Amino acid sequence: MTDNGRLERYAGLAVRSWVCMAEGQELDIYATSLAHYPLVRALARAGYANGARYVEAHYEDPHIRRSMIELAPDETLTWSAPWMIKRAEDRAANKSALIAITGDPEPELLADLDGERVGRARPVELIKRIGEVTSDQPNNWCVISWPNEGWATTIFGEPDVERLWDAVAHAVRLDEPDPVAAWAEHSQKLGARASALNERHFDAVRFRGPGTDLTIGLLPGSEWAGGGDTTNWGQRFIANVPTEEVFTTPDWRRTEGVVRSTRPLSLHGTMVRDLEVRFEGGRAVEVNASTGADVVRGEMAADDGAACLGEVALVTGDSRVADTGITFFDTLFDENVTCHIAYGFAYPDRVEGGRKVPPDDRREQGFNYSVVHTDFMIGGPEVQVVGVTEDGEEIPIIQEDEWRLT
Amino acid sequence: MTDNGRLERYAGLAVRSWVCMAEGQELDIYATSLAHYPLVRALARAGYANGARYVEAHYEDPHIRRSMIELAPDETLTWSAPWMIKRAEDRAANKSALIAITGDPEPELLADLDGERVGRARPVELIKRIGEVTSDQPNNWCVISWPNEGWATTIFGEPDVERLWDAVAHAVRLDEPDPVAAWAEHSQKLGARASALNERHFDAVRFRGPGTDLTIGLLPGSEWAGGGDTTNWGQRFIANVPTEEVFTTPDWRRTEGVVRSTRPLSLHGTMVRDLEVRFEGGRAVEVNASTGADVVRGEMAADDGAACLGEVALVTGDSRVADTGITFFDTLFDENVTCHIAYGFAYPDRVEGGRKVPPDDRREQGFNYSVVHTDFMIGGPEVQVVGVTEDGEEIPIIQEDEWRLT
Repeated sequence: MTDNGRLERYAGLAVRSWVCMAEGQELDIYATSLAHYPLVRALARAGYANGARYVEAHYEDPHIRRSMIELAPDETLTWSAPWMIKRAEDRAANKSALIAITGDPEPELLADLDGERVGRARPVELIKRIGEVTSDQPNNWCVISWPNEGWATTIFGEPDVERLWDAVAHAVRLDEPDPVAAWAEHSQKLGARASALNERHFDAVRFRGPGTDLTIGLLPGSEWAGGGDTTNWGQRFIANVPTEEVFTTPDWRRTEGVVRSTRPLSLHGTMVRDLEVRFEGGRAVEVNASTGADVVRGEMAADDGAACLGEVALVTGDSRVADTGITFFDTLFDENVTCHIAYGFAYPDRVEGGRKVPPDDRREQGFNYSVVHTDFMIGGPEVQVVGVTEDGEEIPIIQEDEWRLT
Repeated sequence: MTDNGRLERYAGLAVRSWVCMAEGQELDIYATSLAHYPLVRALARAGYANGARYVEAHYEDPHIRRSMIELAPDETLTWSAPWMIKRAEDRAANKSALIAITGDPEPELLADLDGERVGRARPVELIKRIGEVTSDQPNNWCVISWPNEGWATTIFGEPDVERLWDAVAHAVRLDEPDPVAAWAEHSQKLGARASALNERHFDAVRFRGPGTDLTIGLLPGSEWAGGGDTTNWGQRFIANVPTEEVFTTPDWRRTEGVVRSTRPLSLHGTMVRDLEVRFEGGRAVEVNASTGADVVRGEMAADDGAACLGEVALVTGDSRVADTGITFFDTLFDENVTCHIAYGFAYPDRVEGGRKVPPDDRREQGFNYSVVHTDFMIGGPEVQVVGVTEDGEEIPIIQEDEWRLT
């Protein structure tokens, strides 16, 4: 397969089979780095070729953010440009298709800056407004990656983009003769896992392993899902490519214990390594790490919900991403190698009736709300995962990295 | 001077001495190519270092536009995203500082597309709204360039960026020991030319040369200016770097004759060569060129004012840009080598009381309005420029490329 053929095939799958753009939709492409331009251009082309009414491409340049964190007045760090709010509102109202691109060529760009400012810097009003207008899932959206030299260097110590491409292609099933069929089968497998979990109505899930004994309470209405989402107008889509998880929204008030991260976390231009967090009454009360702890603490100080859990997700060792044997230093991949949790924002979709609950009422109903949502990896071969019933019985879900629940 | 030193000096001059950003202003940076990123980043840094409240950087990717022109539905070509209108309104209301960057690495990117669609494609409502909200000059703004490999290759046939840098540095007086003083002196010179023209109150200017005999009627209120502008809140700024012109807004109804372009014109990804235009009663009635004529015709069909003149500008052979002996294939430079005219939009500033006249009323008052504004070069050593008095007397302004009017 030539490079060009691969790029076009990848972009075509993204538009037609992952974000599942409908004819006449607006397609918004959000590149988190200028290095993503080949994919941005191929997506724009695929968008128009498949009937997009309008394609918009936005390039984020993290160096501008670096200057802001380093030099801007304090109030600028959390400010939101009104036009960005307008754009977010329009996108929701138009039911646009959205594709975001990851693959950070400079994952430690902000490592030397004040971690507290790095952790705090985010457009708060914008994120809140996005949370409001997208609560009932008007958009089909998808996060995909773009292999680039800087990212490959972070992983392999050399800019071996072809090796990274091979890993990405395997992880996203681009190496299958019929990727569409492979994805359908995969979605079905994850859906079956979610169904098995939903039938049990566990009261909590518990993780036990080296440095970890964490119990995460669930809500009566917590719904497990995996392998695909649906817009409020009935469009199926794959929100993350790759995706290997089944996940739900926990009861943010009932997380107890300690957890040790099992993978490094690339977080806003800083690498968080050896993260350890202790939870009491649902809240992170102690955060340690060998690097990047202040960025995590800065994030957790953003608002009331930032230090509480918004997601718990289960992944097994037969994951396509785990197959590659690579640490990608990119959450889109690394969270699909192993089980993970996220502090901050909870997906309202994953609670029965949650789409109808305004952000301000959510925490009272037990599912979290925050302007932060940060996943970190806590699973692995040595970490056992059980479901806890109302009676306190523990039922194996994952053991030795294999799925046990049927 | 190291590369880094040069970049920082250039960005510092742009922020402090050209756009003249005031402390607490918002600074908006608009890059017309991803290749401009080193300058974008240096400007953002200089912006925050000099007290910007917020810096925003927008990267335009012409390849997205290419896909649109090639593949999008017809109505998309002229559509404006509502958030862009909101952003334009906010910028005017906030009195932001704006820096745009030219230097096209792919000036023939659209050359193989349907020229009529290329010429027509523009966000009409957005341009109209910008015209309305910036009519009274709320923003200090500046267009500067960024030397890059593609642009250098267009000029020299090889990616000799250093040679291009030398030419640009000379043209923008970055090679002066004290560029700020050099710019002050230069602005004064252009201001004196404008004063000399304003004292004469010419009824018209006339261009005569090979293939050219063009008379451009002026308005009683036409005001010549050069070397700097002023916002409605009293901030001086240099709108174009380089700038070597004195210019005014003509009476769009009174252009008569024929004109032959003396330089190629890089226009929206197409190169227009050997352009010849015949005007009757103010309107271009015949357009020919060896390449790109259909793009010009497409532009001129955009609205009522697009085929009429909105600007006449005078430049002499002692221009810093002319010094370099280079055709830059970039209007920011080439229009500062020699006299030029623009079809389309007229700057309301250059008519007495013009800032107060709403766009819809302007053409009735004799100064043009359009969503198009395209400059092309018509001067040179063989083209003589005279001012025509009310009585029909012809007074030399430029002869043999030298300024004659005192």
